[in-house]
Amino acid sequence: MPSTSIVTRLIKRCAGETDSGDEENRACATRGSQQCFYYFLLGAFSRTSLAFATLQQAFMTTPSPGTLEVDFAFLDGADIVPYTAARTGAITEEPTNVALNVSNEREDAPSSTENHVGCRNRWYDSLPSYRGRGIFSAFAHCTPRGSLRYLLRLVCFLTLLGVTAALFIFIVDLSVHGLEKLRNLISSVTGGALGYVLYVLTGVTLCLLSTFWCAVLSKEAEGSGLPQMKSILSGFYDRMKKSLELRVLFAKSLGLVCAIGGGLPVGWEGPNVHISCIIAHQFYRIHFFRDLCTDRALRLQTLAAACAVGLASSFGAPLGGVLYSIETIASFYLVQAFWKGILSALSGAIVYELLYTTPLVEAFEGTSFDPSDVSRTQILLYAALGASMGALGALFIRCVRSIYELRMKHYPGSSRYILVGGVAFLAAAVQYPFRLFALDPRAAINDLFKAVPLHMTDHFGWAELILLPLAKFVLVALSIGLPLPAGVFVPSFLIGAGFGRLYGELMRIIFGDVIIPGSYAVVGAAAFTAGVTRAISCAVIIFEVTGQIRHLVPVLISVLLAVIVGNAFNRSLYETLVLMKHLPYMPILRRDRTPEMTAQDIMHRIESEPHFCPDADPSHIKSVLDKFPSRLVFPVVDSNGFLLGAVSRRVIVSRLHGVLRDSAESTVEQNVFVLLDVADLSENIEGLVDETPSGEHSSKGKVPANLQESSASIVLPCDVSPIIVTSYSLVRQLHFLFVMLMPSMIYVTEQGKLIGTIEREDVVYGCRETNDIS
Amino acid sequence: MPSTSIVTRLIKRCAGETDSGDEENRACATRGSQQCFYYFLLGAFSRTSLAFATLQQAFMTTPSPGTLEVDFAFLDGADIVPYTAARTGAITEEPTNVALNVSNEREDAPSSTENHVGCRNRWYDSLPSYRGRGIFSAFAHCTPRGSLRYLLRLVCFLTLLGVTAALFIFIVDLSVHGLEKLRNLISSVTGGALGYVLYVLTGVTLCLLSTFWCAVLSKEAEGSGLPQMKSILSGFYDRMKKSLELRVLFAKSLGLVCAIGGGLPVGWEGPNVHISCIIAHQFYRIHFFRDLCTDRALRLQTLAAACAVGLASSFGAPLGGVLYSIETIASFYLVQAFWKGILSALSGAIVYELLYTTPLVEAFEGTSFDPSDVSRTQILLYAALGASMGALGALFIRCVRSIYELRMKHYPGSSRYILVGGVAFLAAAVQYPFRLFALDPRAAINDLFKAVPLHMTDHFGWAELILLPLAKFVLVALSIGLPLPAGVFVPSFLIGAGFGRLYGELMRIIFGDVIIPGSYAVVGAAAFTAGVTRAISCAVIIFEVTGQIRHLVPVLISVLLAVIVGNAFNRSLYETLVLMKHLPYMPILRRDRTPEMTAQDIMHRIESEPHFCPDADPSHIKSVLDKFPSRLVFPVVDSNGFLLGAVSRRVIVSRLHGVLRDSAESTVEQNVFVLLDVADLSENIEGLVDETPSGEHSSKGKVPANLQESSASIVLPCDVSPIIVTSYSLVRQLHFLFVMLMPSMIYVTEQGKLIGTIEREDVVYGCRETNDIS
Repeated sequence: MPSTSIVTRLIKRCAGETDSGDEENRACATRGSQQCFYYFLLGAFSRTSLAFATLQQAFMTTPSPGTLEVDFAFLDGADIVPYTAARTGAITEEPTNVALNVSNEREDAPSSTENHVGCRNRWYDSLPSYRGRGIFSAFAHCTPRGSLRYLLRLVCFLTLLGVTAALFIFIVDLSVHGLEKLRNLISSVTGGALGYVLYVLTGVTLCLLSTFWCAVLSKEAEGSGLPQMKSILSGFYDRMKKSLELRVLFAKSLGLVCAIGGGLPVGWEGPNVHISCIIAHQFYRIHFFRDLCTDRALRLQTLAAACAVGLASSFGAPLGGVLYSIETIASFYLVQAFWKGILSALSGAIVYELLYTTPLVEAFEGTSFDPSDVSRTQILLYAALGASMGALGALFIRCVRSIYELRMKHYPGSSRYILVGGVAFLAAAVQYPFRLFALDPRAAINDLFKAVPLHMTDHFGWAELILLPLAKFVLVALSIGLPLPAGVFVPSFLIGAGFGRLYGELMRIIFGDVIIPGSYAVVGAAAFTAGVTRAISCAVIIFEVTGQIRHLVPVLISVLLAVIVGNAFNRSLYETLVLMKHLPYMPILRRDRTPEMTAQDIMHRIESEPHFCPDADPSHIKSVLDKFPSRLVFPVVDSNGFLLGAVSRRVIVSRLHGVLRDSAESTVEQNVFVLLDVADLSENIEGLVDETPSGEHSSKGKVPANLQESSASIVLPCDVSPIIVTSYSLVRQLHFLFVMLMPSMIYVTEQGKLIGTIEREDVVYGCRETNDIS
Repeated sequence: MPSTSIVTRLIKRCAGETDSGDEENRACATRGSQQCFYYFLLGAFSRTSLAFATLQQAFMTTPSPGTLEVDFAFLDGADIVPYTAARTGAITEEPTNVALNVSNEREDAPSSTENHVGCRNRWYDSLPSYRGRGIFSAFAHCTPRGSLRYLLRLVCFLTLLGVTAALFIFIVDLSVHGLEKLRNLISSVTGGALGYVLYVLTGVTLCLLSTFWCAVLSKEAEGSGLPQMKSILSGFYDRMKKSLELRVLFAKSLGLVCAIGGGLPVGWEGPNVHISCIIAHQFYRIHFFRDLCTDRALRLQTLAAACAVGLASSFGAPLGGVLYSIETIASFYLVQAFWKGILSALSGAIVYELLYTTPLVEAFEGTSFDPSDVSRTQILLYAALGASMGALGALFIRCVRSIYELRMKHYPGSSRYILVGGVAFLAAAVQYPFRLFALDPRAAINDLFKAVPLHMTDHFGWAELILLPLAKFVLVALSIGLPLPAGVFVPSFLIGAGFGRLYGELMRIIFGDVIIPGSYAVVGAAAFTAGVTRAISCAVIIFEVTGQIRHLVPVLISVLLAVIVGNAFNRSLYETLVLMKHLPYMPILRRDRTPEMTAQDIMHRIESEPHFCPDADPSHIKSVLDKFPSRLVFPVVDSNGFLLGAVSRRVIVSRLHGVLRDSAESTVEQNVFVLLDVADLSENIEGLVDETPSGEHSSKGKVPANLQESSASIVLPCDVSPIIVTSYSLVRQLHFLFVMLMPSMIYVTEQGKLIGTIEREDVVYGCRETNDIS
């Protein structure tokens, strides 16, 4: 294989050359269909002349003439812009005549993803700026390209996302109201026992319909949705992508409408977050936004913004939505994502404000407490409320978990329809005699938050005030784990407001009229929700929902106490749901790993693992791909065992296609891996839009069936700087690397030789497939 | 050197052993003063028995008898707890008689830092939990030890920090008011021209005194303080530690009192942030909190919390303070730091509320706009205001920079006293005839925010409204770069409020009484401040300051627009100050680096760089330390050039002391580096409390003078998994690693051999020493 060494030498020589001049065109990729294919992407175009010279030299050393096909990828200034232009020049026997027509025509819309795999922007491309001052320089922090057009596209994307999601969420809410009114109408027209029966019957039917949609369309639509988003944003986009498909959107929205319309006391903010994320993901399909979706970092940031939109559009709380999404979803947060979240959430919140002032649906009302209400001596009372709400929140999580475990233990095979039917029957049977339970939670919360005495509220007396939170507590705990879309924020809000108002009324009896029970309802709502979700930003949401910020100190104190007390007992509900559903989740270590184990203890020794040599032939590669269908990245080692780099399944699959296309022209059997200075290939860059899937779901389909017949050459660009550790590295170091850098694989070397590989699955919790929870 | 290979073999064998049983004692460190010293820290104590056996075997192979000194470090469950116990056992010629008295007595208060260097918790120890459920399990996320006592200490620390900083800030504010009153009293008593002269004279004197304090006590106290905190929290704690010394606190507070008292229109929130951080840093000295300060991650988190306290105590805005500190200081934010910031800031804000309701000082007043004021059609007007405030903010930054550059260019050697005296004279000369300019900014802002018409405000007419923002704009731009403590937030707030009110009044003339000019002042204040600082959380601060959140949408829209428009022109003021002062700052790339350069282009080849072999002798080590006084970490390579690990200057210096102490007993000349599975040693673990300094400032002092006479052995534990890259790695990859993982050095290897090193300084901007800006 003389060509390998030539190209390696070439690359080395080029890489050794420092930067100078020729700012416009900074990198090129050439690919020949000569005796072997050359493909390289160099960091700086100033090296290109040298590269060309060496290429010519390489051709001089190869005996037979042929054609040289060249693909160019230019780097625009400091940012990678995957321009491509294919040019063909005939290689004559006189190599100095090689015609290399360099073109910097820009293909704005990438014609095929295949051309761009080598140029995808890495996760860290969107880290802080590499630019000085100048137009939109600070947005170069946020946008890998730093151009005005790119920024405008991003702003369009974020605004449109906010508006669309808010509209969609409004329509869902409207449908829920329609169903509720219809049910009430039917039962009230008939009245009496028949009305009762009809009310229960319609409720049960709708709930069964809800779980039916999930069963038929997509089981990914079950549950809150936030745990899945947690998993995706912690770095498991590739594995969890199926939760973002269009059919999940239908299942989630139809299921949500039927579930809430059917009277189950579940919330809509978690499903709304899921719906927003699906909408964002579907936007990537739009041609205009294609550029945005190739950047992995930006993709994660836009998904985080979508989460914020989901929350903001549920409550009209843009700030709270963004903060809540930061707290519940990430373990670390890039500050540059903040403005993106705010922009999207604000768009959503404006739409919310416009729509929810219409009398079509219920909306949260602002409170009107007198600012002087909060005397400092009451702070202790608020703090006690906060602490007890934290304990209650922990108890709630414990109940949800116990109910789920009980069901899994005693009725593992029980039908989803029996489960849902049973709970729906219970809910409807309770709601008909006590119409308060059937009330929209927003109306009940508005009533509880009122500053007026209890007897002047619309719906509440002492009996209702005691019954409502207790009954809701039980019903919500039963409903959360059901196999249908079910959020938990709004029910928690209601339960907390109920308990808080009750506490306030009791305090009023003890301490007299200085106590305004409504303010305790506000604090209780925030604190119980914080106790369940462990998010301090529940406080911000309540400020935005009530429109009053004068209770800042008592609300913050009780929320903080609720979080601390809750954490003393167990994990947050969302983390518990992640554990219950066995979702992959970076921040949690695998159960059989301890932080003090070493890489050596957990690595897969390279002997038993798939790896390629530079001279592997396509049929071997295909057999390895087939043997390890879930493997995303493969190491490349030379004959002495030295690690040369890593090559991704996605690249292999797309190259194999290329080989097939070229095989008509070329019949040479040699195969060359060339080490390339390529951006992220070892990390889990994935097919983003559904028509170019990859990984475990589609790899077998993508590897051409007639590959074995083809004996053409294949060239695989590989990442020369994958993440390397020594065999003494501790698991906590590895875990840290996985959390912060999100690679899909880490390589263990000893004196440069690859001795083992460690996948995310070897360190991180829950990398099994999602279980069906019914 | 047979001993090297023995110990290496030993370590390898131990590391290969998997975990089992013996949970209580999980690691041991042994050190012998035999012919060679053995020192190792293993991950799991189950390996200890094996380690002991192999140690005995090692002794069997070494001919001469001696004593074996053993230090033990136990790992407690999943968390590293640096227990130590020194035991000495006599080694006879019969090695099976080695007495190894394992003790798990706990030394709660580390008696000397030297014993613990190997056990310091790494930055990522406080990443997400390695624990299951159980008491305070979720706080195991946040606290490396996860114990209740540790948590209580942390809560104490954070609360005390909030309270102390708020009190300190209040006293500073009180002193400022005292000085202002005194000056007014003096000038009003005399009156006329003499009063004018006295007013100007006292003003100039006080300002000169302010810069005098900075010159005498510490030049680190000059400027806002936020840029220094940016630098520290981006990962340059070791280089910038001198900004956190006690004398800086005195310089900063005295200087601040004199500067504002002397009538300079500078703000106090930046200095307050600096003051809070110094207080936090000084708290580390307290014995009770010692444990907390050994954890680098926690240190950064508590410093971030201190920043939040500084802001929260300046405005009584806990939420805004935390968010503002996130936005202006970090490039990424660990979510677990959020509750710490909130807790501290809330403590500070409660103290603020209690103190600022006293009539001793001015405070921000809540606004009382009618919620229905904001009609939707006005949103366009608000947006236009936001955009123009963004442009004005950018202009302001440009002015500050130009003034500074002009001064540097034309008067580089000009005395600080002339500069300060000149600006102080100008300020005082303007303030005496226009007493509005001498008004406390909070009083002026309260007036501008009022919902009443202009003629009903206390201080403003049309002339004042036009003059005030323009004059302040010029004066503040002049004052910011002066060599005395000077914040920018409050002056920006005032300028923005002035421009906003002016805009509002103009709109009122055009559109009539539907416009409430006061609300435009609120929006203008938030937008101009956002245009200067590029922080969206200015919106949150204004909600908390005014106590009204109903203007949520217009405020957020205009703030967002201000940030976007401002970013179109230049960097934020704080980043500009970082650049102007040449502070080291991770997120900015060095000017002569492009993201596409490779590691090979920028690395220092190992031939010219300091590195140690395992058999280096103390005198050689000392000479290398002296030759490279600013180097924090040194690589260890074997005779074939393979990278074995890295050893920190701190460890070397402390070991050299150990050698001196032992040298009485031992006179053997051999020296062994043993590769150890030690927590963070390669990263910039630094002397935290001032009595154990390290690095460039003190290394020469610390290396014992009589070292050269001493020929004793030295054992240096080294980190076996430093960060390694290949020579093809791009600068943007390196930059990413530096930003996210904050190492002080990265190693470039080729097939396992060390070929070069890359320091932070080679990639990151501004690693020169801080320049004196006067």
